[in-house]
Amino acid sequence: MKYTVEELAKAVHGSVIGDGAKVIEETRSLDQGAPQAISFAIGEYCEFVPQAKSGAVIVEAPVEGAPMPLIVVENAKVAFAQILEMFHPPVVFPKGIHETAIIGKNVTIGENVSIGPYCVVYDNAIIGDNVVLHPYVYIGHNTRIGDDTVIYAGAIVHENCVIGKRVVLRAKAVIGGEGFGFATENGVHTHIPQVGNVILEDDVEVGACSCIDNATMGSTLVRRGTKIDNLVHLGHNVEIGEDCFLIAQVGIAGSTKCGNHVIFAGQTGCTGHITIGDNVTFAGKTGIIGNVPSDGLYAGYPMRPHKEWLKIEAYQSRLPDMAKTVKKLEKEVARLKEQLEGK
Amino acid sequence: MKYTVEELAKAVHGSVIGDGAKVIEETRSLDQGAPQAISFAIGEYCEFVPQAKSGAVIVEAPVEGAPMPLIVVENAKVAFAQILEMFHPPVVFPKGIHETAIIGKNVTIGENVSIGPYCVVYDNAIIGDNVVLHPYVYIGHNTRIGDDTVIYAGAIVHENCVIGKRVVLRAKAVIGGEGFGFATENGVHTHIPQVGNVILEDDVEVGACSCIDNATMGSTLVRRGTKIDNLVHLGHNVEIGEDCFLIAQVGIAGSTKCGNHVIFAGQTGCTGHITIGDNVTFAGKTGIIGNVPSDGLYAGYPMRPHKEWLKIEAYQSRLPDMAKTVKKLEKEVARLKEQLEGK
Amino acid sequence: MKYTVEELAKAVHGSVIGDGAKVIEETRSLDQGAPQAISFAIGEYCEFVPQAKSGAVIVEAPVEGAPMPLIVVENAKVAFAQILEMFHPPVVFPKGIHETAIIGKNVTIGENVSIGPYCVVYDNAIIGDNVVLHPYVYIGHNTRIGDDTVIYAGAIVHENCVIGKRVVLRAKAVIGGEGFGFATENGVHTHIPQVGNVILEDDVEVGACSCIDNATMGSTLVRRGTKIDNLVHLGHNVEIGEDCFLIAQVGIAGSTKCGNHVIFAGQTGCTGHITIGDNVTFAGKTGIIGNVPSDGLYAGYPMRPHKEWLKIEAYQSRLPDMAKTVKKLEKEVARLKEQLEGK
Repeated sequence: MKYTVEELAKAVHGSVIGDGAKVIEETRSLDQGAPQAISFAIGEYCEFVPQAKSGAVIVEAPVEGAPMPLIVVENAKVAFAQILEMFHPPVVFPKGIHETAIIGKNVTIGENVSIGPYCVVYDNAIIGDNVVLHPYVYIGHNTRIGDDTVIYAGAIVHENCVIGKRVVLRAKAVIGGEGFGFATENGVHTHIPQVGNVILEDDVEVGACSCIDNATMGSTLVRRGTKIDNLVHLGHNVEIGEDCFLIAQVGIAGSTKCGNHVIFAGQTGCTGHITIGDNVTFAGKTGIIGNVPSDGLYAGYPMRPHKEWLKIEAYQSRLPDMAKTVKKLEKEVARLKEQLEGK
Repeated sequence: MKYTVEELAKAVHGSVIGDGAKVIEETRSLDQGAPQAISFAIGEYCEFVPQAKSGAVIVEAPVEGAPMPLIVVENAKVAFAQILEMFHPPVVFPKGIHETAIIGKNVTIGENVSIGPYCVVYDNAIIGDNVVLHPYVYIGHNTRIGDDTVIYAGAIVHENCVIGKRVVLRAKAVIGGEGFGFATENGVHTHIPQVGNVILEDDVEVGACSCIDNATMGSTLVRRGTKIDNLVHLGHNVEIGEDCFLIAQVGIAGSTKCGNHVIFAGQTGCTGHITIGDNVTFAGKTGIIGNVPSDGLYAGYPMRPHKEWLKIEAYQSRLPDMAKTVKKLEKEVARLKEQLEGK
Repeated sequence: MKYTVEELAKAVHGSVIGDGAKVIEETRSLDQGAPQAISFAIGEYCEFVPQAKSGAVIVEAPVEGAPMPLIVVENAKVAFAQILEMFHPPVVFPKGIHETAIIGKNVTIGENVSIGPYCVVYDNAIIGDNVVLHPYVYIGHNTRIGDDTVIYAGAIVHENCVIGKRVVLRAKAVIGGEGFGFATENGVHTHIPQVGNVILEDDVEVGACSCIDNATMGSTLVRRGTKIDNLVHLGHNVEIGEDCFLIAQVGIAGSTKCGNHVIFAGQTGCTGHITIGDNVTFAGKTGIIGNVPSDGLYAGYPMRPHKEWLKIEAYQSRLPDMAKTVKKLEKEVARLKEQLEGK
């Protein structure tokens, strides 16, 4: 595939500085640039543009000394994403229902759908337009899948769930499995039937092998635009707001509710039955054990404001020295006392 | 589905206070109560009963000022679980072996079994009565599945394993994969064949995408009644006692042995080759790096008794202040020394 | 299966001390030894050999007082692994392509291959000689699988990946899913197409439910001989060197590069875009948040050299006492000042 710089700029609504007629044949990162490739640069990476070997670079403002044509856009990363798709059109899966797919009774299937080999779609499910179900996808009874949603191989959506439009479920994701709820009597645990469901709103993404349990009653809910990485666990009745990030291996225990634009970095864990506000960021491995107000950056376990956490960590490094100082002071004070009172 | 309060009380062996003829149509949590719904309340939640809108409430003792009929039982959570099942009978999967299921040689299949689409059951496996295998379940050679066990979509039980009665394996659980055992020679790792198996005793539950490796020799063992959440890892030759809880994302390294009634809260990790007693609880994210006696509550990494951990965490918050105090003391002591000795 | 001690010694190139004609019928660990069984002992375990009940023991040097015949070899663990395989020949899966496997267009399949029930192999894939694909294995478009590789049930290798020779992918492993890369504009996250692939070199092993994402551009890379346990996450563009160990539930964020012979113990997490040298070991639950030079042992979060971490942890335990001492000193110094200056 080949495009001129001009054609690429047009596609991303950018303006060209330099030779718009130059032909670009592939995409590369700036540090691995080549004359036939387009790259992008933002922030401090812009200073590497003058030395880069890329044939063109997408930027957010003119870069002085750039030897190659630039495409200036508002958001270089978004523009580069669009150009990546132009150069790498994804594998297309054939439309229609594969002959080995098993479709239950009273299933509604939209237009332009692709249901792959060995899928199982159970009774009363509703599959929207343009949905792609890759091989071995399981859709439970009464579950509804919104338009333009893509579900990768081996993902499972249990019964009664509601999946929005343009949702992406990656391979082996498990949505709507029964929550971990038990009543304990004389030390013996009896499972409490979890009869609720999971709702994933529009534009949600769930990573490979991530598990979102259904609600005891009501719904476990992930709101519009939230993106969930691989191997994440959401317990029963969790609610996650809009446009959040849950990075790999995060775990959120049952009934916790979280606002919008919250970022949980990798391996963060969150106790159940708490409330988290909007615009909060948790560093990797944070242990969240109480309510968190809106706006803030936290780290550590138990969780502290990030600045305080950094400060305490720094003082911990000095603990051995401080212990020595205290010991020395003890001796000196004892001696002073002796001198004073011994008189 | 509709029941009178009287009918519901009878089903859970409870006694009615108030109007037993009232008709109940659904289940709801107390805070989302509605006149046609039954809820339950225990402990401190009982104080919300007088204001609740529920049509009936299950309790463990009479609540003063309750405007609705109450059902008094010994264990309200267990009773509510029973009532949930009455209102939400689970989806029933058809009995029999689906025509796409592949059954090996010399397989023994009990009565009243449901084997779903695209299951694979290999040679010499034994499937007990009333077992349900959902789609894509894989049962390896010589593996035995006890009566009334339910295995959800895509779960895998490798060869030679022994699964008890009334066991639940959730979607994509992997039981009996080969343990992570290597012999290293000149820095190169050679896999040691892991020829043991996994035994899950009666009433064990294993969550979605949880992995229990087989033993190098002998058996990896989970005893009766233990419940394991999603994304948990048990290494080769681990032994877990009866009625334990392993919450999401817990990892237990090889050959560790643990007693009964132990609770591992989420993301707790445990080193290999150690022994843990009975009735121990580990807070979330605990790092267990040595033997643990029976009876206790632990937290932190490295693990400490919970009280001690709390105390140390509190002192850590005061570290910056303490450092200042020590500095001030140093100066003052120096000055005192000067005054005294300078005389 | 039965072998004489002499036959077993020959197979592992060892020398016999004692009765080489003794017949051995099974393998057992030393502490569960029995007269018909062979065990092995290394390091401090050798002192248990004189009391052991094993019929023969593999060792790395003669053990005084051993009542049973010994087989002396250079590496007892490696030799025992070989003997385990002699006594436990693995279940053999039939050669050929199962009639339910779906094979795309232009797929190249080597000799002596076993492709199990319900596998899906998409267009232009290349499957090497002696490869075993267990049930439900999915091989994406253009992906290449090297000779002698074994892929267990339900594992997925997405399109364009390159899997080396003698690689093992355990059940439900997901290789080459799209990385977690987004461009955020006005708080809304747009997925950046991840058009790279995953390369697993020869002799790599990946555990059950582990997820290795593809690269944004270029390749996510795991080099020769590295062994990855269950439930591990590798982000896009990660590079792991040769002969590393990544124990269960480790997570490595995008674009991090790591050298050879590095050990990540369980639940360790590593931030993105950093570089780790060779021969580094990270204790369980380590939080790696910056570059790490070659050669070293680290622990804690934030990560510290292991010795320093131990020291600080020890001082933390003494914090409450130290706080008391400081308080006492404050009082004493105040009194001394009074005495001195009050004069």
